[in-house]
Amino acid sequence: MSAYRTEKDLLGQLEVPEQALYGIHTVRALENFPLTGRKVSRALVHAFGAVKLACTRTNRELGCWPEPKAQALEDACTEMMEGRLDDHIVVDALQGGAGTSTNMNVNEVLANRALQLLDKPLGEYGTVNPLEDVNRHQSTNDTFPTALKVAAIQQLRLLEREVVALLEAFQAQEKALAHVVKIGRTQLQDAALTTLGREMSAYADAFARDRWRIYKCEERLRVVNLGGTAIGTGLAAPRQYIFKVVEKLRSITGLGLARAENLIDATQNVDAFVEVSGILKALATNLLKISGDLRFLSSGPDAGIGELSLPHRQAGSSIMPGKVNPVIPEAVSQAAMVVMSNDQTIAQACAMGHLELNPFLPLVADALLGSIDLLNHACSILRRFCVEQLEANEARCRQHVINSTASVTALVSLIGYQKATELAQQVATTGRGLRELAIEGGLVTAETFDELISPESVTRLGTPINKGPR
Amino acid sequence: MSAYRTEKDLLGQLEVPEQALYGIHTVRALENFPLTGRKVSRALVHAFGAVKLACTRTNRELGCWPEPKAQALEDACTEMMEGRLDDHIVVDALQGGAGTSTNMNVNEVLANRALQLLDKPLGEYGTVNPLEDVNRHQSTNDTFPTALKVAAIQQLRLLEREVVALLEAFQAQEKALAHVVKIGRTQLQDAALTTLGREMSAYADAFARDRWRIYKCEERLRVVNLGGTAIGTGLAAPRQYIFKVVEKLRSITGLGLARAENLIDATQNVDAFVEVSGILKALATNLLKISGDLRFLSSGPDAGIGELSLPHRQAGSSIMPGKVNPVIPEAVSQAAMVVMSNDQTIAQACAMGHLELNPFLPLVADALLGSIDLLNHACSILRRFCVEQLEANEARCRQHVINSTASVTALVSLIGYQKATELAQQVATTGRGLRELAIEGGLVTAETFDELISPESVTRLGTPINKGPR
Amino acid sequence: MSAYRTEKDLLGQLEVPEQALYGIHTVRALENFPLTGRKVSRALVHAFGAVKLACTRTNRELGCWPEPKAQALEDACTEMMEGRLDDHIVVDALQGGAGTSTNMNVNEVLANRALQLLDKPLGEYGTVNPLEDVNRHQSTNDTFPTALKVAAIQQLRLLEREVVALLEAFQAQEKALAHVVKIGRTQLQDAALTTLGREMSAYADAFARDRWRIYKCEERLRVVNLGGTAIGTGLAAPRQYIFKVVEKLRSITGLGLARAENLIDATQNVDAFVEVSGILKALATNLLKISGDLRFLSSGPDAGIGELSLPHRQAGSSIMPGKVNPVIPEAVSQAAMVVMSNDQTIAQACAMGHLELNPFLPLVADALLGSIDLLNHACSILRRFCVEQLEANEARCRQHVINSTASVTALVSLIGYQKATELAQQVATTGRGLRELAIEGGLVTAETFDELISPESVTRLGTPINKGPR
Amino acid sequence: MSAYRTEKDLLGQLEVPEQALYGIHTVRALENFPLTGRKVSRALVHAFGAVKLACTRTNRELGCWPEPKAQALEDACTEMMEGRLDDHIVVDALQGGAGTSTNMNVNEVLANRALQLLDKPLGEYGTVNPLEDVNRHQSTNDTFPTALKVAAIQQLRLLEREVVALLEAFQAQEKALAHVVKIGRTQLQDAALTTLGREMSAYADAFARDRWRIYKCEERLRVVNLGGTAIGTGLAAPRQYIFKVVEKLRSITGLGLARAENLIDATQNVDAFVEVSGILKALATNLLKISGDLRFLSSGPDAGIGELSLPHRQAGSSIMPGKVNPVIPEAVSQAAMVVMSNDQTIAQACAMGHLELNPFLPLVADALLGSIDLLNHACSILRRFCVEQLEANEARCRQHVINSTASVTALVSLIGYQKATELAQQVATTGRGLRELAIEGGLVTAETFDELISPESVTRLGTPINKGPR
Repeated sequence: MSAYRTEKDLLGQLEVPEQALYGIHTVRALENFPLTGRKVSRALVHAFGAVKLACTRTNRELGCWPEPKAQALEDACTEMMEGRLDDHIVVDALQGGAGTSTNMNVNEVLANRALQLLDKPLGEYGTVNPLEDVNRHQSTNDTFPTALKVAAIQQLRLLEREVVALLEAFQAQEKALAHVVKIGRTQLQDAALTTLGREMSAYADAFARDRWRIYKCEERLRVVNLGGTAIGTGLAAPRQYIFKVVEKLRSITGLGLARAENLIDATQNVDAFVEVSGILKALATNLLKISGDLRFLSSGPDAGIGELSLPHRQAGSSIMPGKVNPVIPEAVSQAAMVVMSNDQTIAQACAMGHLELNPFLPLVADALLGSIDLLNHACSILRRFCVEQLEANEARCRQHVINSTASVTALVSLIGYQKATELAQQVATTGRGLRELAIEGGLVTAETFDELISPESVTRLGTPINKGPR
Repeated sequence: MSAYRTEKDLLGQLEVPEQALYGIHTVRALENFPLTGRKVSRALVHAFGAVKLACTRTNRELGCWPEPKAQALEDACTEMMEGRLDDHIVVDALQGGAGTSTNMNVNEVLANRALQLLDKPLGEYGTVNPLEDVNRHQSTNDTFPTALKVAAIQQLRLLEREVVALLEAFQAQEKALAHVVKIGRTQLQDAALTTLGREMSAYADAFARDRWRIYKCEERLRVVNLGGTAIGTGLAAPRQYIFKVVEKLRSITGLGLARAENLIDATQNVDAFVEVSGILKALATNLLKISGDLRFLSSGPDAGIGELSLPHRQAGSSIMPGKVNPVIPEAVSQAAMVVMSNDQTIAQACAMGHLELNPFLPLVADALLGSIDLLNHACSILRRFCVEQLEANEARCRQHVINSTASVTALVSLIGYQKATELAQQVATTGRGLRELAIEGGLVTAETFDELISPESVTRLGTPINKGPR
Repeated sequence: MSAYRTEKDLLGQLEVPEQALYGIHTVRALENFPLTGRKVSRALVHAFGAVKLACTRTNRELGCWPEPKAQALEDACTEMMEGRLDDHIVVDALQGGAGTSTNMNVNEVLANRALQLLDKPLGEYGTVNPLEDVNRHQSTNDTFPTALKVAAIQQLRLLEREVVALLEAFQAQEKALAHVVKIGRTQLQDAALTTLGREMSAYADAFARDRWRIYKCEERLRVVNLGGTAIGTGLAAPRQYIFKVVEKLRSITGLGLARAENLIDATQNVDAFVEVSGILKALATNLLKISGDLRFLSSGPDAGIGELSLPHRQAGSSIMPGKVNPVIPEAVSQAAMVVMSNDQTIAQACAMGHLELNPFLPLVADALLGSIDLLNHACSILRRFCVEQLEANEARCRQHVINSTASVTALVSLIGYQKATELAQQVATTGRGLRELAIEGGLVTAETFDELISPESVTRLGTPINKGPR
Repeated sequence: MSAYRTEKDLLGQLEVPEQALYGIHTVRALENFPLTGRKVSRALVHAFGAVKLACTRTNRELGCWPEPKAQALEDACTEMMEGRLDDHIVVDALQGGAGTSTNMNVNEVLANRALQLLDKPLGEYGTVNPLEDVNRHQSTNDTFPTALKVAAIQQLRLLEREVVALLEAFQAQEKALAHVVKIGRTQLQDAALTTLGREMSAYADAFARDRWRIYKCEERLRVVNLGGTAIGTGLAAPRQYIFKVVEKLRSITGLGLARAENLIDATQNVDAFVEVSGILKALATNLLKISGDLRFLSSGPDAGIGELSLPHRQAGSSIMPGKVNPVIPEAVSQAAMVVMSNDQTIAQACAMGHLELNPFLPLVADALLGSIDLLNHACSILRRFCVEQLEANEARCRQHVINSTASVTALVSLIGYQKATELAQQVATTGRGLRELAIEGGLVTAETFDELISPESVTRLGTPINKGPR
């Protein structure tokens, strides 16, 4: 009693684990590509389910199969789309062959699942065939890029939602911290007065641009080459099938997909992935920049800037009592760096396509879907474990403001540039605070000084007075 | 008799070459940044001229200066905008200080040029001052990013024009080569029949997407922070000035510029440059992919693919008589790789901004404007020296078609999969041609074979017959 | 009956799954960093086991613990080193905190495992404490970088072995294919005669350099900061411990490790990882270049170069009968691209360190160990599934040689440059073969021609005759 | 009277400016490659002079030319090597053709310069020929990579000298600042006490590793393929020439060059450049990390860390009086980022070589020599304009030390962990200084406290006391 069944293909025959829904092509792929130990993206698998369902429905309408076979095929596709066959898609995320191994793993699992639903033994491909039934009128050339685009759009929608939540969290902090006046810094040097609220608003607006960009990405991805089969010729597919199959996919996924007018182009040129990845990189750079700001502003607690307090998420040291580190911005920064490198991977892989097909799409898929997923999680933890619980250290902010020479710019309009410069020098020389010296020196009253460094004054755009001619 | 004049600033005094339009800040920058030996981009200098002209006009309307000083200042700005002061902007393309050295070089040259126009000695800053007049109501914080955006938009418009010319050249070849049937290849292996015209159409459509992307980039760059002065506060600038200055710049440049609603954000977050660079990288990857195809298809002339002939642009070897190399696609490939690396530079530099300003904008400017310029030239030489003069080697294409097992796919609909497979095996075994064997074996007539590999058959989308149920 | 136990730390208390060997710090990390879904590298975990064992043995010798606690601690460390506790190290590969979460996961598992060995309940940290016992005289600051270096060296040794096997496979082919004369190509254009054997020798020698480089990497990694505790000060560790612990680690691992003279430097500066990654990238570029050559030389089978046949590893197409693709070089190419991007990740992460520590070491570890592992598998499949079974298509090679104008260079020494050029032109004009025309034209006999294109002639270095003065 | 002379080559004839030392091949290259506007590296031109001199001397010894032609050729080569013909090498830094255009520009200039020395008209190539004389027994395939290696070694020697100077500057500061105790920070959070001297020592040691790496790079570059001519076959070169020419080059340059044993490999595989660039990237990451530290530690002057003062190199702001920015570390950071991106360029270009030659060596040369040059300047300005004039802000350092909870770690060995923790909490709650509270609370005397935070205590490695068993 063997635990294996025998299958064969063009290259010969092999043993397949008896209970496996996958078949011989998958077994070969497992041997050929023992690379990362990670399986292909689940989002891609689910999207493949949708694509196969669209193809199967179209073929069914063209009368390809009798019942109940047609229904069994559809049901199997639906299960894959819904994630119920995930465990059976086992090929490595990295693979040669432009995605053939993923497509064949999918085809084999769907065929065997349909056989199960028909109460037939696994591997009875005379009844349901991975190639002639499941892959009917298809090629890896068209199904893989189409599934990748569907998966990317679906994941981008989730990401968009997370980016919106993140920007709203910053907007909430913008309001909450609007009253905290502080020193603004350029090139890490004290520059001019601003408020914590405005800093939060700048972050919110940066992510608002990202949100818009991600939203627009969908346009870049909605044109698919399904129906193009080999190299975009539609070879071996009936014309009616080609004209219907994308419409079916649109209705199944609810996404605004369209068939490429130039299927040859859509099969070989993959620049849309470069563009989308480039756009995601903008989000990564915003995350890295803003995480850096959060780490810098919360440095200390005593011997640093210390203007912000990040929530304590875990103990930071076994030796230094009470040390807590900015672990969330640090984790987010690393995720951002991975996305930046994935972008390089994607560009290089796309640039190295040859003629009628890009053989490196499996890598593109892995890097692109990996980036979206990672950004999704990074935005989520940044919001939930950091931004929403940010607190200002108001005393420290005020202490910086009233003691820094940089605050002297707020006095210029009142006391003139000359006296302001002298006052700044006095601060530098004596090491005493600006406010103290300004009041002591009779340049301003305490009231006026505090008015000049009030949130209202600080956030007023420009000066009301027109300087005269000189 | 000294050839130097003496100038001073906050740090002390220095000798400046007597006839130099630049001043002490520029001299310091020249000493501080002896880095690349390249000067800042001329496109950036011209855009700075436009920005300074907008500021000067606005200030003039606010009554800042009496005549003829106001006119002299405007005239100097106009000259810079028109490229007539290029020789005087001498600071290195790489520089610390977030662009202060470029801004100050500009300010000094404009002040001295205005002094010349007023028949005053160079360096007489009591009359026209680089800071208090030329830089009035400005900061490097707002003028540099604004000038960079103006320069980028202007250069992108030139690039768009070149991309259009390139895609049109491919469209012309699409028509010219529509009749040349050839083997299409996936993963560099013979796959299915196609035409050279379709290959050209795929390239044309890839560049059509690039054209659209470049066109849309303008939207990402049109929001400027001019008027924001230090960190976007508008510090020291009159409100009327802030509300007018961008409008002036819009009218001077003819570009659809708008003032950022959130000046704080627009001053510190530079993700738009990451996005635009990412989009340009899609063009670079298309150039690299398509250049690779042209090199591969023209490989030979005898022992390679040899389906295309590229124009001969220069002798290829001193040892091997008659060798001519694909130097234009090779040059274009290298330009594309530089653009891809510049994109990394830009992303890293933008991600490393801190708080209210990104100190690395000079690098971003250098890389971004450098990329646009390089793409411009690369598209131009690819079109003029390669694509427009491409020729098909029709005999070679036909020879491949009639001898390759891959052409058997064209016969499947007629003779069935089984016989087609046998025929392919016969070709492989005997080393004889497919057409010859097919006719000899009585499977098709010569006429039918030639009909099946005609351009009309090959470019027909899908099969007319619906395969019945099985 | 609860399935949880309660643990507490500085931030409060939490539920931990009752049977888990990990504790509260790990639970926090799992919540904080739901990023990649991948766990930290197993190689790193095993190396951590070795590091903890070294520390534990040193502490034991200093009399830190009574028996049997000391033995239980050592036994737990040994189990981790041997991979028997892998399932319990569950924190995400990406994490903030400079590796604290990995270190704490390790500490908790070792403490609980020691408790098990002592027949004590899990979580009874009064008996065996993750911090005060397992982490005694240690910090993440020193254990993490040390474990990373140990893991990297161990993995590099495996990689070196695979690279040696790969280069030997190419050397075997060098001998096997020494007799196959073929056209050499520069810039993809036919250039001069060479042999397949020499092409294989070039590949072998490239990998021989890689082998040497990898071997030398060990030197870059052998200096460790163990004993440095916080920021390299040795804070809270006894002097005897510091002087002994690296020696213990050396003896446990059998690696030539040494304690850094400057522990402060060794804790904060991580340039050694940049260097090692840069060196691995050289291997990646060789793999990418050579995979490209294999794909190009095996292109066809009919309408391509077709000089090499790669072993058939899986069916290539469901539509095109008999199509087989170069899936192994394609997979290897993608692995190489990942390594190149990981190198960017590593450089960026290392460059962004701050002051006394680099917070991004978890990312560096993930990328570096990931690269080594991927290269290991890539070299293995390239050798086993491709290089060892490469076959020459000798007929095709000869056909190219006798028909190409490029072969004319072989005749120059005999018939002179002038006649050689005329002959080449004749070939180009008539489309007939070079050999045929040369013999027909009476320029050489068949015998002489074949002698001139024999392997012996082709591989002879330079000409024997000294050309006289002109 | 025309200002042009006419020259011809295989593709036809063209006008060349009458006085130009270059000829028709250069004219074609100027038309073909209007890409960067930058000329090829001068270091490469000088190295080409050395290579051509070696070839010419070898040919002369083989009796190739009568006098005085032989002497004129040698003299011309010497002039190029010494930089006296720089103005005549005008081809663009980016070019197709694997460097043919650079080689031909060199050949033409040397031929015409020899003609000048012989009092012959320019362009009289019957007397001295760019190909048959200057390029005799050579190919771009061997001269270009050899010249690149020579140039790289020469430039690396200059770089090594600058790195040594930089590390010595840090060593000087190590001594000068040895007495300044300060807070060490991990993850930007206050951690443990250290000294400014130790921070400087860590920087010095990082650059000491770079120095060693750069020194070792020479080994990677010293094996050259000169004599290999086309694809490494030595085609058309006499055997005696091949055996002598590298020796000549070694003696001319004084570098330890050696002829590659496998010339085929040495011509096509360019992984050595990837390796060297990867090693330079380690220097770039150290520069970026350390520049970041300098910027962070000098942030302020009031509302930042402010522990270091960088020398004032230029005025920082026109609006904010007295603002001075860390422009030197900012410039160095940007140079480092360029080097990091150049490394990507080099790796990608090297990975995309094909078969017997890498067509993208001109890009590799430009990026590699550009990186070395940029690093050279960056190290120089960092040393001269920043490190040598660094000053500690001792008062600020001490203030941080005596007020920070982090300093409590220094007291643990004296007062125990429990009391230390309570004291830290007291500091956090009251906002008062640590020293003050510790003395007031009777935990230590002022004397003891100051002894515990003395440089001697802080830099002592580990604790003398062995903690007993628990």
